[in-house]
Amino acid sequence: MGVLQTEHGSIQTPAFVPVATRGTLKTIPPKDLRDIGVQTAFVNTFHLTVHPGVDVIKKLGGIHKYSGLNIPLMSDSAGFQVFSLGPGKEKKGAKTHEGDELPLEKISEEGVQFRSPRDGKIMMFTPEFSMRNQEKIGADVIMAFDECIWHGATYEYTKAATERTHRWLVRCIEALRRAQSRPKRQFLYGIIQGGVFKDLRQASAKFIAQQDVDGIAIGGVSVGETKKELREQVSWVAPYLPGDKPVHLLGVGQIDDILDAVRYGVDTFDCVEPTRLARNGIVYQRSRKTLTRLDLTKSRLLSDKNPIQKNCGCYTCQNFSLSFLHHLFKERELLGYYLATYHNLSIFEQLFRKVRERVVNNKI
Amino acid sequence: MGVLQTEHGSIQTPAFVPVATRGTLKTIPPKDLRDIGVQTAFVNTFHLTVHPGVDVIKKLGGIHKYSGLNIPLMSDSAGFQVFSLGPGKEKKGAKTHEGDELPLEKISEEGVQFRSPRDGKIMMFTPEFSMRNQEKIGADVIMAFDECIWHGATYEYTKAATERTHRWLVRCIEALRRAQSRPKRQFLYGIIQGGVFKDLRQASAKFIAQQDVDGIAIGGVSVGETKKELREQVSWVAPYLPGDKPVHLLGVGQIDDILDAVRYGVDTFDCVEPTRLARNGIVYQRSRKTLTRLDLTKSRLLSDKNPIQKNCGCYTCQNFSLSFLHHLFKERELLGYYLATYHNLSIFEQLFRKVRERVVNNKI
Repeated sequence: MGVLQTEHGSIQTPAFVPVATRGTLKTIPPKDLRDIGVQTAFVNTFHLTVHPGVDVIKKLGGIHKYSGLNIPLMSDSAGFQVFSLGPGKEKKGAKTHEGDELPLEKISEEGVQFRSPRDGKIMMFTPEFSMRNQEKIGADVIMAFDECIWHGATYEYTKAATERTHRWLVRCIEALRRAQSRPKRQFLYGIIQGGVFKDLRQASAKFIAQQDVDGIAIGGVSVGETKKELREQVSWVAPYLPGDKPVHLLGVGQIDDILDAVRYGVDTFDCVEPTRLARNGIVYQRSRKTLTRLDLTKSRLLSDKNPIQKNCGCYTCQNFSLSFLHHLFKERELLGYYLATYHNLSIFEQLFRKVRERVVNNKI
Repeated sequence: MGVLQTEHGSIQTPAFVPVATRGTLKTIPPKDLRDIGVQTAFVNTFHLTVHPGVDVIKKLGGIHKYSGLNIPLMSDSAGFQVFSLGPGKEKKGAKTHEGDELPLEKISEEGVQFRSPRDGKIMMFTPEFSMRNQEKIGADVIMAFDECIWHGATYEYTKAATERTHRWLVRCIEALRRAQSRPKRQFLYGIIQGGVFKDLRQASAKFIAQQDVDGIAIGGVSVGETKKELREQVSWVAPYLPGDKPVHLLGVGQIDDILDAVRYGVDTFDCVEPTRLARNGIVYQRSRKTLTRLDLTKSRLLSDKNPIQKNCGCYTCQNFSLSFLHHLFKERELLGYYLATYHNLSIFEQLFRKVRERVVNNKI
């Protein structure tokens, strides 16, 4: 177990980093974070650039003050959107607003062109632009601008893109060096790419570890198609992770994957899963070594007096029956999204507390 | 200022009764009620009958335990749905689910036939059925089954319907007398109808006041078309309101109307307005003697550092700027609904505290 010290408090690791894309953990007001046990959150540079704009956030005192999330925060670089709004989106069949074209326009050595989903304006994300925007947002941990490569890319494409990501990291570091208004202690993480290819992953890990970065992130793993691929990719780079720098695994939130990754030296994990599932009425139940999922809309829950989880101390489980939660979801009452999210995040935090105990006791 | 004692606590009057139709104050978890100052809430018998069903609620320990709303609760009788799902709905152009027919089928001496919006089944609401369902729900204050008459009904229709409402009240009282499992202290309110006609309103008030009821409600006033009509109707019945019984004004939530009605002896007021407006991004601001409305989606708020209301002590105003609230509503983030509702209910409770002070000081 370690501790990550930031200007806005410390993070006990291994830690879960729930996703607050637009500066909000969806249904959860910041005043609930302490009760739930949330230590940190992940905000999205692309979305915050689109709205309200990074200058608004800077003017209003930075993301912590703006959002009321007065905890250590991380921001991504918009590199993931190269995947999620580009080929990844197309592939996964996710939908943009009706009639919209894909927001990703073009990738070049200079950077990535997006079309704003809000007003259609062309936005050029470069390493320098990403750094400047992340400075203005003011999160405690910022990510280098990278390209998250879609699953299925060829070896040649992956090699070229990974090497470009390396050149972009050098530009990110240079941009920060020149920056005037950078928050005092803002940690830059370089991102390992390399796709599904062992030699490219390892070359990337070696390169990133040698740069002047404060931490290491492993990117592009969550877009893999199997758990096996995910584990392989983490295991390949594990020997090259520097022992004295924190390591973040981007976009991974399955509890078995997390346990494995902790063994390989990963400290922090962000994932939309617990909050997104909750809004769809799916809540976690603990069984022996894993989490199972319960769909709150199932009609057999109509008069079930039990809480979601008998020995869970969260607000939802201490006060509400499955029957009531089922009722809220069947009637699409907003309180349902809150109570389900409260529980899912609580379960995650309970699990991470156990993981930290096991790390301390060398049981992992 | 008075106090209404119930098994689940006391209500300082005059009091606002926010509407928790399906057993939830929409975005607000019960644990926030104390901070906001909410003393009581109003649940809807029709909607709770449709889902989850009154037997489920009874089996799970009654509405307080079921919903976590451990405060004095009131339930309506489904009489308002005779208006809102029948001619009132048609008139106001509100929509049912696409393709649905109007859920109101037929009004007779026996009661009112509705078609369930959930499964299309015919439900016969009679005075006896309404009482039995309200017993099972278990609110502290229950309403007699009445017919809320639409604005524009003729004198003849209004007279016949009002007299039927009186006969239904007698049946309600009789049904409760025979009831086995009635909660110990459940207060029955009779409802004054009489539409827009002075003699019918006054005859109704006289009749209701003479019955064996624990309180008096004034119904059908909110469906009037002008504020003048509303005030007239309350002023007509005021002389007939018994001084020793609490008086509730159904569906009125405009602050100027409330102040007037308090002068006429009204103790409690329910209205969907503060919560419904909030979910549409409309928040209250206090000006000298009234409330003005601010639309949080207005683009001029994009970088406004101010809270909604400078001297408001609510969680929203103490922690969030108009800029952030604007951002949440523009991006349809769920937290926006919560923060706006929190503020609107807080403003209402602040106003009611002032009204109570003025009553104590004879300044009203």
